[in-house]
Amino acid sequence: MLERFKVPEQDRVYVPQERVRAATEAIFRHNGVPEDDAVTSTDVLIKNDLRGVESHGVSNGLRRYVAEYGANSLNPKPEFKVTRESKTTMTVDADGALGIHVGPWAMQVAIDKGKEFGMAAVAVTNSGHLAGCGYYAMMAAEQGMIGHCMTAGGSHQTVPTFGSKPVMGTNPIAWAAPARSMPPFLFDVATTQVANNKIGLARRIGAQIEPGWITDLDGEPIMDPIDPPDTGDYYLLHIGGTRENGSHKGFGLALMNEIICNELSGYGPGPVHGTPGGHFFQAYDIEAFTDREKFLDDMDDLLKFIVDVPPASGFDRVIYAGLVENEDEKKRMKDGIPYHREVIEWFESYCAEVGIECNLR
Amino acid sequence: MLERFKVPEQDRVYVPQERVRAATEAIFRHNGVPEDDAVTSTDVLIKNDLRGVESHGVSNGLRRYVAEYGANSLNPKPEFKVTRESKTTMTVDADGALGIHVGPWAMQVAIDKGKEFGMAAVAVTNSGHLAGCGYYAMMAAEQGMIGHCMTAGGSHQTVPTFGSKPVMGTNPIAWAAPARSMPPFLFDVATTQVANNKIGLARRIGAQIEPGWITDLDGEPIMDPIDPPDTGDYYLLHIGGTRENGSHKGFGLALMNEIICNELSGYGPGPVHGTPGGHFFQAYDIEAFTDREKFLDDMDDLLKFIVDVPPASGFDRVIYAGLVENEDEKKRMKDGIPYHREVIEWFESYCAEVGIECNLR
Repeated sequence: MLERFKVPEQDRVYVPQERVRAATEAIFRHNGVPEDDAVTSTDVLIKNDLRGVESHGVSNGLRRYVAEYGANSLNPKPEFKVTRESKTTMTVDADGALGIHVGPWAMQVAIDKGKEFGMAAVAVTNSGHLAGCGYYAMMAAEQGMIGHCMTAGGSHQTVPTFGSKPVMGTNPIAWAAPARSMPPFLFDVATTQVANNKIGLARRIGAQIEPGWITDLDGEPIMDPIDPPDTGDYYLLHIGGTRENGSHKGFGLALMNEIICNELSGYGPGPVHGTPGGHFFQAYDIEAFTDREKFLDDMDDLLKFIVDVPPASGFDRVIYAGLVENEDEKKRMKDGIPYHREVIEWFESYCAEVGIECNLR
Repeated sequence: MLERFKVPEQDRVYVPQERVRAATEAIFRHNGVPEDDAVTSTDVLIKNDLRGVESHGVSNGLRRYVAEYGANSLNPKPEFKVTRESKTTMTVDADGALGIHVGPWAMQVAIDKGKEFGMAAVAVTNSGHLAGCGYYAMMAAEQGMIGHCMTAGGSHQTVPTFGSKPVMGTNPIAWAAPARSMPPFLFDVATTQVANNKIGLARRIGAQIEPGWITDLDGEPIMDPIDPPDTGDYYLLHIGGTRENGSHKGFGLALMNEIICNELSGYGPGPVHGTPGGHFFQAYDIEAFTDREKFLDDMDDLLKFIVDVPPASGFDRVIYAGLVENEDEKKRMKDGIPYHREVIEWFESYCAEVGIECNLR
């Protein structure tokens, strides 16, 4: 994550992960989520926060989820319904579950089927926010497989190349692969220039938006650095930004994601129907293709080769996706997670309001 | 493809596809490729040319392949060796075959296995140039499935984010999906700002290179429009261009590609060993996830919704990946393929030199 998105030092409150975990689990339980599922859902958010993926941790997610549970637009006690199944595939109606509720279960099904048949995928419909895709891809990597995850919503945030109106969400995507001694590869990105949550983060911490990240309400790319506009006053651009700089590649990637998450799952086109998330979880069994021990050694060789590339002028080092996340996780397990004090104040005021114990400081 | 990469009108020679097909097949046969394989290999190049993907058609590819056959660095009569196989996977040593030689066979194996088990993938090692990935992904779409293809070479062309030296090739990637009456989705891109062949194309037709597409030999992004440098005088940038503009996303995508094509296949890290292409072919059976007829209807709804988006100021229309390629294919089947006269002259001089009949005009 760019330095500008980090919480400024003077606004940081360092919270031990077990404390924010306990408070978050209590909030899920208070909203009707069964105890085991509250633990799993919370783990998605806290792992994101530990890995430095603040845009998909408790800061932006939790108050949204609480509002959605409160408005009955999320089902805290869903019954997952398998609508189609083959040896390597499963399609599931999540019965209005939050994405972080159904996601860990669905990814584990893909992993288990993949171990048996070489590769497998689970498509999930009728579900809420997934909080990014990295967590799920990493579940596979932690079990010695290659993981892949995508999600496509029905929100209209992102303007297609040459277009004037937004038609898709940020349609994020992730892949993860284990190595032997090097930190695992974890590629976890929105198919937009920045995740929409980052605009909110930038607003909270007073950072600026780069040229070519967003458009005005006519779909015209804003090519000057500006303060983050208010929600509703801008649209997002796909990876690349402008056509000359290859935004058709980000747009195509987002559309592929939409096709697999919403059309292949049978959920129907998100841009047309405005339906919430369809998710896709896939796992590859390494042993089905090659010797797993050789794979892990080769991954170490590859990743060492990358970090040994001499940096360009003005930069400290070359990194790969997952390296800094791994370093952040180790550091934050020890020192606590640096939250913006405003986030802590929200936890404390919400917990006081609904009568939950909340001990974050 | 950007307008600037099209062959200028005054340099165009329109050739009926069956004539360039016949000449190309004859050239493959002359280089020792068996008759059936010459037909298949040629089809990859001609379909690319018909679809307007000139960077991966006969213009750039054929003289390179002829040189590689001549130098015995390609095997015209390979025996494919299956090194590992499961219900949904196969790993194949291509015995030094050109990528366009082994690729159509390998993709068909993935399609056939996918039809039986829901999804499947074939990883190929020890093989030459694949001529992009779109052709193979489209094979699946033409057979009513979703297709996915990647290839990663061992060439050092592309500089990682923050790096000063190139470590990967352009590592292209493609997905294709059928629709009912709309042209199929075909997303087929290099994970660099531009395919390296496009720099050659730009040189041939006198076009300029955009800011943020390439670097100097210190890995410093060149941020002014310039004439295309000579081969060896520049490196490529990943999708995004600079770090501020998100090049870590293009770099991560390229590295994922490398991991799946070269590590999962057991071929070993291309950047470290400098080995030629490892390829990956994957097919998803739509019926394993949902009703195929509903999928085709939903695809039509989605793609119509996209092309109906009002264009931004200064643009004619909104398109999706595969739409223009489909229009080009219909037009070129009727009017012939517009080759640069220099390409036709190469055909004629090569054919005269080796004594092959060649009737392109």
